[in-house]
Amino acid sequence: MKIDVFASHTHLDEKTLRGKTVIILDPLRSTSTIVTALANGCEQIIPVKDVDQAISLQESMKESEVVLGGERNDRKVPGFDLGNSPFEYTTQNISGKTLIFTTTNGTTAIGKAKDASAVYIGAMINSLTAANALLRAESDTVLLLAGKVGRFSLDDALTAGYIISCIVKFGFNIRIELDDLGFVCLKLYEQYKDDLIGALKYCSHAIKLFELGSEKDIEYCLNRDTVSILPIYKDGRITV
Amino acid sequence: MKIDVFASHTHLDEKTLRGKTVIILDPLRSTSTIVTALANGCEQIIPVKDVDQAISLQESMKESEVVLGGERNDRKVPGFDLGNSPFEYTTQNISGKTLIFTTTNGTTAIGKAKDASAVYIGAMINSLTAANALLRAESDTVLLLAGKVGRFSLDDALTAGYIISCIVKFGFNIRIELDDLGFVCLKLYEQYKDDLIGALKYCSHAIKLFELGSEKDIEYCLNRDTVSILPIYKDGRITV
Repeated sequence: MKIDVFASHTHLDEKTLRGKTVIILDPLRSTSTIVTALANGCEQIIPVKDVDQAISLQESMKESEVVLGGERNDRKVPGFDLGNSPFEYTTQNISGKTLIFTTTNGTTAIGKAKDASAVYIGAMINSLTAANALLRAESDTVLLLAGKVGRFSLDDALTAGYIISCIVKFGFNIRIELDDLGFVCLKLYEQYKDDLIGALKYCSHAIKLFELGSEKDIEYCLNRDTVSILPIYKDGRITV
Repeated sequence: MKIDVFASHTHLDEKTLRGKTVIILDPLRSTSTIVTALANGCEQIIPVKDVDQAISLQESMKESEVVLGGERNDRKVPGFDLGNSPFEYTTQNISGKTLIFTTTNGTTAIGKAKDASAVYIGAMINSLTAANALLRAESDTVLLLAGKVGRFSLDDALTAGYIISCIVKFGFNIRIELDDLGFVCLKLYEQYKDDLIGALKYCSHAIKLFELGSEKDIEYCLNRDTVSILPIYKDGRITV
């Protein structure tokens, strides 16, 4: 089983992902929020690239059935119903609804994977479920880290490392071939698995979220395997 | 002191490096070879992007004063005098000469840094000297990993980690601010500093070099601080 890890979707050629099983990772906080929303009964999520696109899509839909969510620079977009904290995506707010969702890094990364054979949404909170799906996949695997504005981000790398460690643990007789970055993510996770918060003290994006008072979000997003659903992206929509 | 690490020069915007002190790292083997050639008396190195450019530049110069060196796919370019093994760049072969040099990743990375305030060439073999120069620099520092065809490469990351560890060690009262990738490189180096060869068993580029019979090159390139010169790139030429 071949696993490649890409540190950012920016400039990534769509051809690179063609025919692969891709998992998108942006645990702080985009993919954690997507997983949470679907776990809380959201019917479908439509990820869009920008705010304009989100608003015009909303206008074309029935008001009672749609929720507008997302962030720019880690803050809720003015006029949107919800931001990018998983705690906002309660059953009450989201159950049975369509969520139109846009974030700075996560939702654009998803758009890059349109030619993949399967696209899943992963976070710390559903890593084991994601690892199981990758173990059953028939094509090569790509872990696509959303990054932060084109840069490598530690939270993504720790999540990739945890997923790889699950694959290694449960892929009993499978020969696993990691690329250089996959090896580094695995070693990083092994070094910090008992102190993920300690590692995130060196993560510039986490530092920013701490400053914005989102430490509860960070704690939530670092929980491992609290959710057992695996969102899949297909034909422009994310569902379970 | 702010240190940013970029995993590859591909798609890197030249503006990102403007006004920064940049060190280019491609220890297997491009930058190790550059350092070695200059240590062995090479007068200057002209890095060029492609083979055609190398040949036409050579034709414009006096035959007895110029040497053509470099690789494509880790093999010597047909018709060139020397390849990309540091062992070829002996005093006898290179002393007093101008070296026109082209490699797949290293020399193109150098070209990206033309707007930087200073550009140095670093490898394991001259890391401590590089760290000292960065500690004296007045602008922010970028460690630019050459990568392998746009991908993250473990040999580059270990070298970056070693340089950062030297900066941390000798930058007594200096507050050092690392980006996420800088932190990861440092932790990776600390984990493998007593077994660099062990780490390189997971490095796809090193595996390829082992297969090509270049294990002696790898051992040489992993020696720390055996050379105390620091090449500088300015006006299209690399000198000491």
